[in-house]
Amino acid sequence: MAKKRNIIVGQSGGPTAVINSSLAGVYKNAMERGFDKVYGMLHGIQGLLDEQYIDLGTQIHSELDIELLKRTPSAFLGSCRYKLPDIHSDKELYEKIFAILNKLEIEAFIYIGGNDSMDTIKKLSDYAIITGQTQKFLGVPKTIDNDLALTDHTPGFGSAAKYIGTSTKEIIRDAEGLTYKKKMVTIMEIMGRNAGWLTGATALARQEDCDGPDLIYLPEVPFDQDHFLAKVEALLEKKDSVVVAVSEGIRLADGRYVCELGSVADFVDAFGHKQLQGTATYLANFLAAKTGCKTRAVELSTLQRSASHMASRVDIDEAFMVGGAAVKAADEGDTGKMVVIDRISDDPYMSATGIYDVHRIANEEKLVPREWMNKDATYVTEEFIDYIRPLIQGHYQPIMVNGLPRHLVATKATRSRRRNKSDLEFN
Amino acid sequence: MAKKRNIIVGQSGGPTAVINSSLAGVYKNAMERGFDKVYGMLHGIQGLLDEQYIDLGTQIHSELDIELLKRTPSAFLGSCRYKLPDIHSDKELYEKIFAILNKLEIEAFIYIGGNDSMDTIKKLSDYAIITGQTQKFLGVPKTIDNDLALTDHTPGFGSAAKYIGTSTKEIIRDAEGLTYKKKMVTIMEIMGRNAGWLTGATALARQEDCDGPDLIYLPEVPFDQDHFLAKVEALLEKKDSVVVAVSEGIRLADGRYVCELGSVADFVDAFGHKQLQGTATYLANFLAAKTGCKTRAVELSTLQRSASHMASRVDIDEAFMVGGAAVKAADEGDTGKMVVIDRISDDPYMSATGIYDVHRIANEEKLVPREWMNKDATYVTEEFIDYIRPLIQGHYQPIMVNGLPRHLVATKATRSRRRNKSDLEFN
Repeated sequence: MAKKRNIIVGQSGGPTAVINSSLAGVYKNAMERGFDKVYGMLHGIQGLLDEQYIDLGTQIHSELDIELLKRTPSAFLGSCRYKLPDIHSDKELYEKIFAILNKLEIEAFIYIGGNDSMDTIKKLSDYAIITGQTQKFLGVPKTIDNDLALTDHTPGFGSAAKYIGTSTKEIIRDAEGLTYKKKMVTIMEIMGRNAGWLTGATALARQEDCDGPDLIYLPEVPFDQDHFLAKVEALLEKKDSVVVAVSEGIRLADGRYVCELGSVADFVDAFGHKQLQGTATYLANFLAAKTGCKTRAVELSTLQRSASHMASRVDIDEAFMVGGAAVKAADEGDTGKMVVIDRISDDPYMSATGIYDVHRIANEEKLVPREWMNKDATYVTEEFIDYIRPLIQGHYQPIMVNGLPRHLVATKATRSRRRNKSDLEFN
Repeated sequence: MAKKRNIIVGQSGGPTAVINSSLAGVYKNAMERGFDKVYGMLHGIQGLLDEQYIDLGTQIHSELDIELLKRTPSAFLGSCRYKLPDIHSDKELYEKIFAILNKLEIEAFIYIGGNDSMDTIKKLSDYAIITGQTQKFLGVPKTIDNDLALTDHTPGFGSAAKYIGTSTKEIIRDAEGLTYKKKMVTIMEIMGRNAGWLTGATALARQEDCDGPDLIYLPEVPFDQDHFLAKVEALLEKKDSVVVAVSEGIRLADGRYVCELGSVADFVDAFGHKQLQGTATYLANFLAAKTGCKTRAVELSTLQRSASHMASRVDIDEAFMVGGAAVKAADEGDTGKMVVIDRISDDPYMSATGIYDVHRIANEEKLVPREWMNKDATYVTEEFIDYIRPLIQGHYQPIMVNGLPRHLVATKATRSRRRNKSDLEFN
């Protein structure tokens, strides 16, 4: 009996609106290239270590299912935040992973994720080479934060930017409609710990029919509360409704997060990142106290990354494309690589995939360049907007059932088994 | 020269995604019925008192503008929260209003708003009758809260419910995808001070592809923290991700708002309503402390009422219809009335307009009936969902320009004049 040609694919890190479009791209391309099976790790490498996986062929039955999957937010397979230890520090763990891969006759291991996930690809591909094993390891970029190096942008970013731009317009209109003979400052808090790409995307709202936010503060530049107060006070002299977009990660010159100035407790996640919340609330309270003006804090929360009902067509298509490109690369013998998106032209917008050595990518953060902000770092420039605008174009009409967008989910049997703690292994 | 037949229309109270569809309905019907001009009060009766109004004919130039207006969230004309004094306590103010109406040769005064706005219609129509003036005063219902009596439901509610249902599905998927071998409770905070219609709408998310929220707490029934904790703990035994929807207005049996238990300062608006925030944050902190579990608070914020990109077609069409019906009623001699929506049938859903005496409507709140909640008031029933489901059907594709929904806004000249404090009067 001939050796099987199987693929295993996983999803890791914070979800996006289009991470499942990459999964769909992996599945469809693998089928077209004659692979036998595509397994999905449930909850990434962490689930794989518990032998939690499914055969995607039991979940995707039709072209319609592919279309639904492309429109389904969050990680269809479940995600994880799990950092592999260094190879030398826990060889047994690596042996366990490779034993599972060998049992499943895996030829290619594809991981859809951000910076931390590319670290996983790097370590596994290194281990395979060191130990003389033949599996190929490919990374597929994914992050709303757009902070991966070497790729022009990351799948997930365009859809988050489109949702943020749309919501910003709606929030600005809401505030303008309510302010008459009284003034109000609205502080919008946007995701982005170190990189301000998403916060800058609020500037997309500045169109013929909307002035956009009045001020935009990115985490790349130290935040000065006195300067901020003076800017807001000057704006309040001129208009009734002032809208400010701030990144959750803005910090003072001394390194303290603005949200730490409030009373919210610290919280550190599995990667040692500080959990942030309350930046907008803190600044709204600060301004209310200093100006006597009514203020409002709006956190866009997790909908920024999961609002597939407002996803960008360019983004969904590119996410699908990079998933397929990873299968192609593995099939052609590449390993230890991440697929990237190269921008071929701005107008008309064209992009193509490339691949880069994952050693050159992992754990580097791409920040907004200083020259893409204005002089006092309170707005982004036209160059910044020109960079983002092509990425938010187009729309996939959600497939509506009973008035709400339909998603593809793992079959009920699978879901209930996933939930049953006494029956962790099922395949 | 024949007397002009003019209409003036205003918008009041919290905005909705479809309040401008009613405005479009007023304008279109008035033109079709041969009225000469439709004036728009800027910022409702409060702006009118400052003689702030525009000729809508200078703003709406085409059928496309009508379509844009139907898709534009928040109050196109600007809103206000202004309660008219009793007639006997400030006769001068009423004389001023009627002097303006007479100067503009107004035949019908149409006010689009909620409970407080119907109070304005009542007072103005009473004053006209008492003083023998001939203007007709009609109310057009509008509120996301769905708390107006006598109408089957209110325009604005269906779109807010559709957005909330959609967002709930996306938030649940986001949380499910992230929880593996660790547990998380997500608390969603939904608008609704006294009426739980919107919070109950989170149950729409329960479809084939989604379990919906696990618990739903409406403000109609006293909230018991110990019972809540026990319910959540029982759920955490069975599943990793627990999602709870709570109304911003839930109260303890002793009448205290749950949000008051936190540290958020009180705030009272122009109508004497207590300003609420932080219910979800308080409960998330409470659960984290009691269970040791990771918790997350998500406030849907003002997007609930302004997310026209996810508006319901039924809602937009009905909002348009009630605007037109108010013009028709005024044209036929009615005054001191509010247009209502009568449900003709559930399946297929059909509705028609009716009119009711505004004296029977004003300042009464329609709450969710107790029998539409389950036994321990931790969920809504199928009857509740059957009532809402028809109201969220269908979609108007946003008119996208450069990747974002286009809105109709008052022309630049008008907008800048509105902002110029030294030039308050312009018409």
